[in-house]
Amino acid sequence: MKKYGEMSKEELRSLKSELEHQYADVKAQGLALDMSRGKPGAEQLNLSMDMMKVLADTTDLKCETGVDCRNYGVIDGIPEAKRLLGEMSEVDPEHIIIYGNSSLNVMFDSIARSMTHGVMGNTPWCKLDKVKFLCPVPGYDRHFKITEYFGIEMINVPMTPEGPDMDMVEKLVSEDDAIKGIWCVPKYSNPQGYTYSKETVERFAALKPAAPDFRIYWDNAYSIHHLYDDNQDFLEEILSACAKAGNPNLVYKFTSTSKVSFPGSGIAAVAASKANLEDFRQYMQIQTIGHDKLNQLRHVRFFKDLEGLHAHMRKHADIIRPKFELVLDTLERELGGLGIGQWTKPHGGYFISFDSMEGCAKAIVEKAKEAGVVMTGAGATYPYGKDPKDSNIRIAPTFPSLEELGKAAEIFVLCVKLASVEKLLGNE
Amino acid sequence: MKKYGEMSKEELRSLKSELEHQYADVKAQGLALDMSRGKPGAEQLNLSMDMMKVLADTTDLKCETGVDCRNYGVIDGIPEAKRLLGEMSEVDPEHIIIYGNSSLNVMFDSIARSMTHGVMGNTPWCKLDKVKFLCPVPGYDRHFKITEYFGIEMINVPMTPEGPDMDMVEKLVSEDDAIKGIWCVPKYSNPQGYTYSKETVERFAALKPAAPDFRIYWDNAYSIHHLYDDNQDFLEEILSACAKAGNPNLVYKFTSTSKVSFPGSGIAAVAASKANLEDFRQYMQIQTIGHDKLNQLRHVRFFKDLEGLHAHMRKHADIIRPKFELVLDTLERELGGLGIGQWTKPHGGYFISFDSMEGCAKAIVEKAKEAGVVMTGAGATYPYGKDPKDSNIRIAPTFPSLEELGKAAEIFVLCVKLASVEKLLGNE
Repeated sequence: MKKYGEMSKEELRSLKSELEHQYADVKAQGLALDMSRGKPGAEQLNLSMDMMKVLADTTDLKCETGVDCRNYGVIDGIPEAKRLLGEMSEVDPEHIIIYGNSSLNVMFDSIARSMTHGVMGNTPWCKLDKVKFLCPVPGYDRHFKITEYFGIEMINVPMTPEGPDMDMVEKLVSEDDAIKGIWCVPKYSNPQGYTYSKETVERFAALKPAAPDFRIYWDNAYSIHHLYDDNQDFLEEILSACAKAGNPNLVYKFTSTSKVSFPGSGIAAVAASKANLEDFRQYMQIQTIGHDKLNQLRHVRFFKDLEGLHAHMRKHADIIRPKFELVLDTLERELGGLGIGQWTKPHGGYFISFDSMEGCAKAIVEKAKEAGVVMTGAGATYPYGKDPKDSNIRIAPTFPSLEELGKAAEIFVLCVKLASVEKLLGNE
Repeated sequence: MKKYGEMSKEELRSLKSELEHQYADVKAQGLALDMSRGKPGAEQLNLSMDMMKVLADTTDLKCETGVDCRNYGVIDGIPEAKRLLGEMSEVDPEHIIIYGNSSLNVMFDSIARSMTHGVMGNTPWCKLDKVKFLCPVPGYDRHFKITEYFGIEMINVPMTPEGPDMDMVEKLVSEDDAIKGIWCVPKYSNPQGYTYSKETVERFAALKPAAPDFRIYWDNAYSIHHLYDDNQDFLEEILSACAKAGNPNLVYKFTSTSKVSFPGSGIAAVAASKANLEDFRQYMQIQTIGHDKLNQLRHVRFFKDLEGLHAHMRKHADIIRPKFELVLDTLERELGGLGIGQWTKPHGGYFISFDSMEGCAKAIVEKAKEAGVVMTGAGATYPYGKDPKDSNIRIAPTFPSLEELGKAAEIFVLCVKLASVEKLLGNE
């Protein structure tokens, strides 16, 4: 296979003409396929249908301390839900608060609270001239939208297969007390599927931030979301690493069952030091009458324990593994050796990250859209939607059926080829 | 029955001795009764148990527009839930956003959003020197806690059986642009059970606030929570009144099913003008991945429509009406004509408001506590917990069983008598 970059203009022109022909054929099919969001497919949702039954035929809706889960009370989660999500988060239940249906909502509220009330007695951020966040890139668009919404200046930090560039992180947070946080998806990262190395986690835990209210926003969204039984990434537990390094309050760790049970109808949790949780609770007890305890009970009775969660996640993996493999096979078969793109091969999570030649991502996504395949917007994986190289594209293979995904992947690689040829030929 | 205020010192001393004797007897029983919070009793919660079944035996978990309620999507509520809570709120579904499990949380978030981002393009409140709220008193403690938490200055406005003192409200909001809102529980108010008159609602709708971002926080928590079939209060619909008065954006109307289905596992909604809802949506789409649509579906499939809601609320009324009547009978029988207390006789809602002689409320609540009866803290119905007359006590009769309530009411009136006698005798 000849690299595109080594082709003559003549060869490129001929290739372009051929690709345009194929592209016209595809457009004529009027497809409507979606590889844009990290949504489970219907088959995955079917796995949890018995959860709708677990509270149906019982009059026992009390949690283990005897509180009636149908009524007001228990602001920070029933004990058995703290235990379950504690196991999932690898921390003791006493370091857990159970929230509502969206961990993103908890992250948003954490930032909102820091704006209006500050972190553990520090100055509210809205009283400061400047607040900054570090953003490992590429990253999760909805994290970046939160900090953007609050007018927080975002600083890009390059990702590596080991995690964020820690030299840069250490330097920045130790020098600038306006830097109040960093967004992390430490395991099967969004979008690359990288897992932070032991060294990275330990360097995070040992950070010496200039700002006393600096926190690591550790969004462990894919903690148990493996694709393989025998090829799993391992992530060092950050809370104990921080405690060991003498920085117990440095991290907020978020998790949820959104991609375990039902997105939108799951339960979320924060794991943090007791001092941090006390800060959260002071806000919570004013903010809400409490979260949905029946849904907490539903989850505990359905999953039972960590082994139940793992068994369930293996069923998810069986469904989505072929989807990841189909996309990866298509990328390898169609683009391998062409020198027009690179991609990650994750062991878990929900995404494959694709890097096109510089300056091609927008064109690829636009072409895919015209051909009926919706991708995550180019640039979305960067703060302010600005990918400086215009090359990163997030591929979300889970939602379409295998058949749809096969078509979508073929169209995607076609668009990559076409956009790359056009780029190489310039404005001719 | 001789009024306490007309008794001689001698008579009072003799009465005091007799009451102290009774009180000692009661304390010796070591009771543990709770009339403190507006919580449904277990019998009421049993009314909704079939809601746990409605999604158990179906594979159809799509809303009427075909969206799978088990997955991400539909940020502001499924159409059938908007219709149901629209009917409950007496507005069109297009004026409704469905939220999570707590309308208090939505109110809190509305204030938080106003602090950091302002209301419909106006200056964020955190950038202003002073923000004030009007607080009809007595009122709902958790409203006041929210505004206190955000450092908003609260101004007491006296309640009347027709609603807040509107002369005062009109004067204050038209003169002071630091006043950004007013907390209202317009129907079966918390704690008095008063319902705002038609004139009051129309005067609200016609307000000419100095602040363009002034909003009425209309917490219609008890809209369908009648005690009687034949003796119901009627509340003028505020959104249409505001539109008619040329002030369509003046009000946020909140509601929830907390005391219809399950507290903590219900669904909440806001009704407002389209411009206001757009303001809410801009925040929501950053804040959350969406609310629990399965719980929305559960509610719609269980209640079906407004008639279903009303039928359900009649069952609630059958359970709690005897409780209200038991307390009212006890108050009348034991305190009627003594001149040491007044109380309201609501047609709906969750509370009875009791006003003792000035300077006695704290002592009464303290004595009740010592005798094993927990009441809402004296002062709680006022901003900052400060009842200037120390006379208002909120009675919540719904949670205890009839038998427990009977005992609690007897102890309460005993404590009222004893505290009143002590007050009249002074420090002798």
